[in-house]
Amino acid sequence: MENFTFYSPTEFVFGKDVENDTGKYAKKHGATKALVVYGGKSAKESGVLDRTINSLKNEGIEVFELGGILPNPRTDRVYEGIELVHDNNIDFLIGVGGGSAIDTAKAIAVGANYDGDFWDLYLKKKNDFPHPLPVGTVLTIAAAGSEGSNSSVLQTPEGTKRGINFEEIRPKFSMLNPELTQTLPAYQTAAGVTDMMAHILERYMTPTEDVLLTDELAEALLRTLIVEAPKVIENPNDYQARANIMWASTLAHNNLVGVGKTQSWTSHHLEHELSGLYDVTHGAGLAVVMPAVMEYIYENNIPRFAKLAHNVFGIPLDIDQPEVTAKEGIREFRSFLKSIGMPLNFEEIGAKKEDIPKLVESLGGDNIKEFCIVDLNKDDIEKIYERMAEYNY
Amino acid sequence: MENFTFYSPTEFVFGKDVENDTGKYAKKHGATKALVVYGGKSAKESGVLDRTINSLKNEGIEVFELGGILPNPRTDRVYEGIELVHDNNIDFLIGVGGGSAIDTAKAIAVGANYDGDFWDLYLKKKNDFPHPLPVGTVLTIAAAGSEGSNSSVLQTPEGTKRGINFEEIRPKFSMLNPELTQTLPAYQTAAGVTDMMAHILERYMTPTEDVLLTDELAEALLRTLIVEAPKVIENPNDYQARANIMWASTLAHNNLVGVGKTQSWTSHHLEHELSGLYDVTHGAGLAVVMPAVMEYIYENNIPRFAKLAHNVFGIPLDIDQPEVTAKEGIREFRSFLKSIGMPLNFEEIGAKKEDIPKLVESLGGDNIKEFCIVDLNKDDIEKIYERMAEYNY
Repeated sequence: MENFTFYSPTEFVFGKDVENDTGKYAKKHGATKALVVYGGKSAKESGVLDRTINSLKNEGIEVFELGGILPNPRTDRVYEGIELVHDNNIDFLIGVGGGSAIDTAKAIAVGANYDGDFWDLYLKKKNDFPHPLPVGTVLTIAAAGSEGSNSSVLQTPEGTKRGINFEEIRPKFSMLNPELTQTLPAYQTAAGVTDMMAHILERYMTPTEDVLLTDELAEALLRTLIVEAPKVIENPNDYQARANIMWASTLAHNNLVGVGKTQSWTSHHLEHELSGLYDVTHGAGLAVVMPAVMEYIYENNIPRFAKLAHNVFGIPLDIDQPEVTAKEGIREFRSFLKSIGMPLNFEEIGAKKEDIPKLVESLGGDNIKEFCIVDLNKDDIEKIYERMAEYNY
Repeated sequence: MENFTFYSPTEFVFGKDVENDTGKYAKKHGATKALVVYGGKSAKESGVLDRTINSLKNEGIEVFELGGILPNPRTDRVYEGIELVHDNNIDFLIGVGGGSAIDTAKAIAVGANYDGDFWDLYLKKKNDFPHPLPVGTVLTIAAAGSEGSNSSVLQTPEGTKRGINFEEIRPKFSMLNPELTQTLPAYQTAAGVTDMMAHILERYMTPTEDVLLTDELAEALLRTLIVEAPKVIENPNDYQARANIMWASTLAHNNLVGVGKTQSWTSHHLEHELSGLYDVTHGAGLAVVMPAVMEYIYENNIPRFAKLAHNVFGIPLDIDQPEVTAKEGIREFRSFLKSIGMPLNFEEIGAKKEDIPKLVESLGGDNIKEFCIVDLNKDDIEKIYERMAEYNY
């Protein structure tokens, strides 16, 4: 086990109707003028936006709005938000929605206090992060884990997708009402579950030894998602299954299942290029990427992939041929992703084989350094993308 | 699943040599004059006390000391600490040791800012908790989980043992170096593991349904302890096993495995009477209490105890007779406790059958309300204590 710091200071308020207490928590954390950042019409139609804004106003907090944030959120809305903050002396950000709204709120919180172009921090050209404005969230899509994480991912209008990890942008509070996710279409629900599994697996599929507890917790989360996801695909109003999934989304990405070990964000890096270029739903892109990555690397750490297959996917352990168990686990993972309606190859997400050189080029050399189970070079990345392009079933 | 709030804001700094950074973290949280609360000679002899104090002084923090805190810590030392704080304008508490030192530090942090007798809060005569002074910890005994919990348990010199649960006393930071636990004798190590298992089981053995994720996480922690505890009993210097156990002690009691459900602190209440009267090591007392409680109540929720037996203790599930599986799990739990050197009956902890009426009387009616799987009255409690007195093997 490696030395680590685990710091998840967010106050998670979980259950039915909790969005009505947003104002109370914002006030507790010093809000007097709040910018509410949200997505499209669903937040308006479901009434969650009104309930959130009313709860803020009831506490005497002045409310400003920045709506229409898109999936795979764009940097131009962040600049707009920063201007709103400066013009109105806003002192608190509230993201209402999923990762897109929350990541945008986080970026505004950083950018508003930054003396320069906030995007330079995402491009890793600069590293002098300012103390950001405080952020709270009202979660309506369980997926990105941004409600408890230290990360924010954005893209330029041209499709360059980059993220930051910065402890001070963890939300002060997050209001988690599983009912709000019940209107989410099956495809978005499944993509969210896939994103959570990726957050867990990117931490799990690394070579650090002697991390039994962290592994056990990761496997516990994965098994929970495998049990609960089919229930909500079958019945979107299954509150209890929605609740277990929503809480899993938070724990999958607040780093509980990543402490004490190296982490590999291989699949995320590869997917960011896909969703940057084709505007694919992030989780759906990950469903295409992850099994391809796993197939390419599993032979470099058969015990770990055999453990995953056995403990998570229930594959009987073949002691004499653990590589068979390992491979069977990856097959079972693909089969699970398919069963919840996720795509498995390029064609299904509108990606093109001939774009592979562009994808590899755009990924760049810097990110490849983070790959963990085995070193990967540009040739390897190309082969992994080819595998996705060629996969047929 | 029930509505819940999960708030674990402590910054956990984990790994080798982390105690040398105590000053840095204390300063970050505003310390200028710190009271270091510690136990007996082991903190001095191991050098951890010196290293902690030096790291504080290196950051320009003035240091005061309150040493000699006993296991099952006493209220008189708290009054002494409060006086030290008042006399010297101390603004930060640091507990160095296990639950005793940390719980004492927490009590001083509350009492120093309380206009009245702090013990009234523990007796539940009063409920007007003040904003406490901030607390940090340097953990040397993995057991109580006080390094991340909202609780503090103390006793009067006469043996009345009571605790508080108060969110604001969660430590600001906790320095967790597994190496510091390597000198702990096998018996204390095993008692610590038993205490952790109790923290998990008191949350697990309750009737709330639809808490799959919380259950999965609880079972993950229990399995980790069952695998790792025998390793450190065999080889006290097994750093990796010590590390998994230490991190488990924190997660067992920061409420990660208790969210969304009712909790039953039955075994703790029964044990507090034993350790109050006989000054037993808390974990050892719990080893005597827990299986007796489980045997007495398991028939009221056989599915839950069968699940525990199967998922944690590896007992094959007898679908037709789940009560057999459930009972077999309790037997296996006792067998595990015995294997790590824990006592299993009254005789082994110096408790006397003729004291049972006194124990039942002292427990009082108020605490009995908290019992969960099934309502228990004074007669039931008496029968459970008798079971411990009569258990033979």
